[in-house]
Amino acid sequence: MKKNCSPGFSLTLTVKFSRADNAAGKLVGALLAAEGEIEAVELVEESSASVTQNFRVRARDLAHQGDLLAATKGTPGAELIKVVDDTFACHVGGKLRIASGFPLEDAADLSRLYTPGVARICRSIAKDKERSFTVTQRRNMVAVISDGSAILGLGNLGPEAALPVMEGKSLLFKKFAGVDSFPIVVATQDVDELVRTAANIAPSFGGINLEDISAPRCFEVEEKLQKLVDIPVFHDDQHGTAIVATAGLMNAAKVVGKKLADLKIIFMGVGAAGTACTKLFKTAGVRNIIGVNRSGVLWRGKEGLNVSQKAYAEMTNPDLIKGTLADVIKDADVFVGLSGPDTVKVEDVKKMARNAVIFAMSNPDPEIRPEIAAPYVAIIATGRSDYPNQINNVLAFPGLFRGALDVRASRITPNMNLAASNAIASIAEADGLARNRIIPNPFDPRVPKAVAEAVMKAAKADGVAREEIPMPGIGSLSDA
Amino acid sequence: MKKNCSPGFSLTLTVKFSRADNAAGKLVGALLAAEGEIEAVELVEESSASVTQNFRVRARDLAHQGDLLAATKGTPGAELIKVVDDTFACHVGGKLRIASGFPLEDAADLSRLYTPGVARICRSIAKDKERSFTVTQRRNMVAVISDGSAILGLGNLGPEAALPVMEGKSLLFKKFAGVDSFPIVVATQDVDELVRTAANIAPSFGGINLEDISAPRCFEVEEKLQKLVDIPVFHDDQHGTAIVATAGLMNAAKVVGKKLADLKIIFMGVGAAGTACTKLFKTAGVRNIIGVNRSGVLWRGKEGLNVSQKAYAEMTNPDLIKGTLADVIKDADVFVGLSGPDTVKVEDVKKMARNAVIFAMSNPDPEIRPEIAAPYVAIIATGRSDYPNQINNVLAFPGLFRGALDVRASRITPNMNLAASNAIASIAEADGLARNRIIPNPFDPRVPKAVAEAVMKAAKADGVAREEIPMPGIGSLSDA
Repeated sequence: MKKNCSPGFSLTLTVKFSRADNAAGKLVGALLAAEGEIEAVELVEESSASVTQNFRVRARDLAHQGDLLAATKGTPGAELIKVVDDTFACHVGGKLRIASGFPLEDAADLSRLYTPGVARICRSIAKDKERSFTVTQRRNMVAVISDGSAILGLGNLGPEAALPVMEGKSLLFKKFAGVDSFPIVVATQDVDELVRTAANIAPSFGGINLEDISAPRCFEVEEKLQKLVDIPVFHDDQHGTAIVATAGLMNAAKVVGKKLADLKIIFMGVGAAGTACTKLFKTAGVRNIIGVNRSGVLWRGKEGLNVSQKAYAEMTNPDLIKGTLADVIKDADVFVGLSGPDTVKVEDVKKMARNAVIFAMSNPDPEIRPEIAAPYVAIIATGRSDYPNQINNVLAFPGLFRGALDVRASRITPNMNLAASNAIASIAEADGLARNRIIPNPFDPRVPKAVAEAVMKAAKADGVAREEIPMPGIGSLSDA
Repeated sequence: MKKNCSPGFSLTLTVKFSRADNAAGKLVGALLAAEGEIEAVELVEESSASVTQNFRVRARDLAHQGDLLAATKGTPGAELIKVVDDTFACHVGGKLRIASGFPLEDAADLSRLYTPGVARICRSIAKDKERSFTVTQRRNMVAVISDGSAILGLGNLGPEAALPVMEGKSLLFKKFAGVDSFPIVVATQDVDELVRTAANIAPSFGGINLEDISAPRCFEVEEKLQKLVDIPVFHDDQHGTAIVATAGLMNAAKVVGKKLADLKIIFMGVGAAGTACTKLFKTAGVRNIIGVNRSGVLWRGKEGLNVSQKAYAEMTNPDLIKGTLADVIKDADVFVGLSGPDTVKVEDVKKMARNAVIFAMSNPDPEIRPEIAAPYVAIIATGRSDYPNQINNVLAFPGLFRGALDVRASRITPNMNLAASNAIASIAEADGLARNRIIPNPFDPRVPKAVAEAVMKAAKADGVAREEIPMPGIGSLSDA
């Protein structure tokens, strides 16, 4: 399967054409012949003799970029002035900027925003620390924390290399839910030191989003950190995926006319995301889940499991079934893949129950290619944007933190996660469910709003919301 | 001395007036009679029967705010609808916002700024960590770190209460030099844990500005932290003050026609700022400095000194003079106060040499009131904006970090600090020096630019500047 061209590999070619030839037309032809995708063309400058234009053209990968460059250089009458790789270009200088929330024009503004006025705010917070959730950045600021131990699908590349991903995450927080967030990459991969570092900086934030921390360390980091701080700790690779997958499962069950409590679900991959999905599926009412990893089916008492695999076996596979994926997938209603590319075979898919559902979430290459599985199942969801039913975390984390911040939550409870799943599922349902419409589009603006409202309600019900601190000085005259 | 009204204590009164009376005029009269300062008046709404206006009026303090409120309530025909304390109001929700440096409009933007394109940046940094100074926020991002142990003049109020000050500092960094910075308040006051926490998060930043950390802990924190990280660590309370005071000293010496090497300088207060000023004065060429604190004059061998006081005694008072401030101030050319209000008496000032200079930098109340000392000295500088010659750190830290970031400095050297002092001094000198014009106005836009250029030059000369990493993908096609 030939990869599609991607904006992530686009080039901007600055090319000067003599007016005498039809060189611009020839370049377009050459780029298309080389299978480039032209995204945009703009005029840079023109004179009576020549025209200079920017061509933004998408390639498949680095080698294909080279082909497009060769095609440009080989076009008669086209002089290549400059080439810029757009992806690198938009990362130069970093992606975030700090801005002021208030006009800062003159000395009077400074007297209120900084000294001497700010001393009144400091003294007020010293009297009641909870006020920091009203009159400081904690009101709307999330830390996006990573140690770089499991960056995207790239592995353990360290904190510096993780930073561009965390900056991107901050863009999404802001774009989708107006949540301010700041990337913190940490130069330790020792669990306790990572936890201590995050806990130490927690007074700067209203919430902590953990990101790209390797399993099973991530479980311990999240649990220990949440015990030390009174703001929500949320490991997105676990719970973000779980929330959206659960929303998808709820709607998939409706489409195929089955009940959650009756489903037999096989998990391929029981790492961070697999474990979190399993837990949230159970919270949603699923009873029969069987986990499989490289060692085969997990069951209570199996030898050679680590702590988190043991815990997984304890909470799943109630009938202690043993064997391989090929054994347990028979009559399964749902297959959930959170493992790696091509880990389930089409002959195994054929053994599944009628109206089977596949969530093949390995990224960018799913556990089975949708076009291969499609003839044998009712519904397929993946992590990819170029297939229907995309399980994309961006449906969950922005709205979830929007809600958590707005009620000054002290933690995220399973019910808050489940409320988020329900909110996401409802929006797809309201638009009419179908086999290729079990989950909303990631850019649907109704989603973060609905998620935030559901999460606030659940936080209040679970008693983890904080009272709003009445502001001294607004409507009263006390600094107290 | 009655305090002036301050914008830091302004109220916005929303008042509804009947058109029948001249109530608006009466309210203005009542506010002025109560000694309020009216900053602004704006129309909110009007009808045929009534007018509603916002009065922004400045008070001296909280009690005076109460007087103004009473005056408003006592004005016939004026109905007080709402009162807002402007200082509290502009801190609600925190003062900083996170923004995107690039348009993020559609899926193509996302593919470049986030997945899948961002993986190319991650891999590139993994191959050479120094690239993080080009393609991540490290290029232009400073951490503003405090443990809240010495907040302004307020003392040890803890991290949450320090946050509004650090947010304000970030506003100044941005406003004066386009430096992005982010407040990190830390929930530990153990020196080693504070150092470890700051070192652990250092890969997220291009520099670290320490702020409001109590002496003598701050010396150890700065020294230990700089040994662990390869980005500049700068404790503004020490070195920012030192840079600006040194600039002032250079120009004061010119005005009174004395040479730095010939000056006898008395320091009252040898804490963080006093020690840093003393060191930078020496770097600038001053030879004869004598420090005084509550225990009297410091001299090498004196009993009962702590580690940093001992170090101070070692590097000053070459003639081992003993006694009190009253003893050593005789014939002194310069008195530098970094202690507390009213710590030098006018009879002592009278003993100073001809054309004496006083830097009374205690804030908000100086070591001696300028109007009291003025008849006996040539030059007085303070930390206050309402007297001439304001020694304000904002002249130093924005430009200093602008320069340090622009050459990717690994640390700040004494020469870089001295270069900053020289740059600040030159700008005042270019405008013409005088007894009340030894230092530029804090809002002078030429200052941060001049400081940055001088600092970059000094960093290169001292070998602490990093080479600019050529960007892969810009002008070439390699992800390598």
